[in-house]
Amino acid sequence: MSVTPADPRALSLNTATVKVRWDLARMIDGCARHGIRGISPWRDKLAELGVGEAARRIRAAGLTVTGLCRGGMFPAADEAGRRAAIDDNRRAIDDAAELGAQCLVLVVGGMPAGSKDLAGARAQVRDGIAAVLPHARAAGVPLAIEPLHPMYAADRACVNTLGQALDLCDALDPGGAGVHARAAADGGAWAPAAVLGVALDVYHVWWDPDLDAQVARAGAARLHAFHVCDWLVPTRDLLEDRGMMGDGVIDLRRLRGLVEAAGYRGLHECEIFSSRDWWQRDPDEVLATMKARHAAHC
Amino acid sequence: MSVTPADPRALSLNTATVKVRWDLARMIDGCARHGIRGISPWRDKLAELGVGEAARRIRAAGLTVTGLCRGGMFPAADEAGRRAAIDDNRRAIDDAAELGAQCLVLVVGGMPAGSKDLAGARAQVRDGIAAVLPHARAAGVPLAIEPLHPMYAADRACVNTLGQALDLCDALDPGGAGVHARAAADGGAWAPAAVLGVALDVYHVWWDPDLDAQVARAGAARLHAFHVCDWLVPTRDLLEDRGMMGDGVIDLRRLRGLVEAAGYRGLHECEIFSSRDWWQRDPDEVLATMKARHAAHC
Repeated sequence: MSVTPADPRALSLNTATVKVRWDLARMIDGCARHGIRGISPWRDKLAELGVGEAARRIRAAGLTVTGLCRGGMFPAADEAGRRAAIDDNRRAIDDAAELGAQCLVLVVGGMPAGSKDLAGARAQVRDGIAAVLPHARAAGVPLAIEPLHPMYAADRACVNTLGQALDLCDALDPGGAGVHARAAADGGAWAPAAVLGVALDVYHVWWDPDLDAQVARAGAARLHAFHVCDWLVPTRDLLEDRGMMGDGVIDLRRLRGLVEAAGYRGLHECEIFSSRDWWQRDPDEVLATMKARHAAHC
Repeated sequence: MSVTPADPRALSLNTATVKVRWDLARMIDGCARHGIRGISPWRDKLAELGVGEAARRIRAAGLTVTGLCRGGMFPAADEAGRRAAIDDNRRAIDDAAELGAQCLVLVVGGMPAGSKDLAGARAQVRDGIAAVLPHARAAGVPLAIEPLHPMYAADRACVNTLGQALDLCDALDPGGAGVHARAAADGGAWAPAAVLGVALDVYHVWWDPDLDAQVARAGAARLHAFHVCDWLVPTRDLLEDRGMMGDGVIDLRRLRGLVEAAGYRGLHECEIFSSRDWWQRDPDEVLATMKARHAAHC
């Protein structure tokens, strides 16, 4: 597959990438300063400003909200825990609606502490998503299940492949009825988003031998977000050693070609957890590097 | 699925578990002393004694050789590197034959340094296995492709699911013609091993949503080895932080039930990479703990 370089207008900043040294207000200003047109806030950053003020500032800066991170974390040891998770997800859906976010990203959760029942956790995830889906539909907020790398299956997310995520989508939202049309990188509207779809982060799925087929299966209606970073060799920490695009082994341009061939026209969100490297740097350097690497490698 | 505790005669020691403080001679003596009836040496340990002497001592101790670790590492940056890997695999097959090993474990290799071509590496693996298969068949040594956890896809093994490994088996060894009958945990002979099959290590596959179906698909002829340890939460290192059975989140008894339901009657090989914990302990304590945990959790 021959793929031309990414449209520079497609870059979006996930707030995790500069979360240590900037607050949300500075991130919004930084995006404007660097000509980055999208942002995807985590809820801890949203809490700094309050969702109403955050939404006003993001709109004023002309940024597309490519997602809100995150809902999910459904499995719990008891019924009270499960109910609390569902309530929290409904609040997250409300926040996503107020922000005009293109989706609420779901990191679905792992096994409750002490449990070895992976199938049980997966059943709790299915039931949790089913419980919040009507609220998402009513609010017009697409939910994006993010399959996480299998190394997070125990404690963060027991949905670990794109195929598994799409099986959930097909079971809970058969047919993938659209919620609303989303903004495309070039400013136009694109395909309506199914109420239930996926957030595809290259870090989590690049290794999957079934990836090409599953991206095609997802199609435009289920592809709610596309996240980029890189897989470093060696990787020194399971959580906080992601690489900047180009510093690792992922063929990013090929993967972008895959999602575009499936109909994706949305932005490319850069999300880098990097406690030893990028989190330590001047965020203006990080954003400038993101832009250059996005152009060179995505 | 209700599964009775494991047959204590089924435990086998993978030499990686005590590699730091014992040489192979002491491991062989240690297995005899602890009533452990199987061993699976790595080639570095084999080199200490020479394969002939190692084979004599292992036979004298009455141990079943549940595998030789390891062949594989097929992808290389150039043709000379690929040829060297194939030659090395043929030598490993000869060593496995001399040891009477039930299989040669293949850790297939990742992408050559600097490459982002995962599909190309996978094609090199397929071609490498095809190149050594006639030698394995002639020597009567089953090859066991070990699908490694996706976190090793870049640098250790680009075969990352059981389904992917079985696709390779079916492509290169259609029908799975038998090489020889293998020893069962109870001392009897069991199903003939296909020349190409898999080594199933719970650490690498426990998270896989497709695991149950793929184990059933493998069947007795393709299940060449079953490795046990545990997945710790948190896992502090990608390579050397495996847990002793019972210390993590894997439902080991369920997984043993799965392989037995598919016809597996072989031993349970304990392979623990643990630079901070088990490798620091007295190996006699490690072996005693292995036995107790195998009985309690497998």
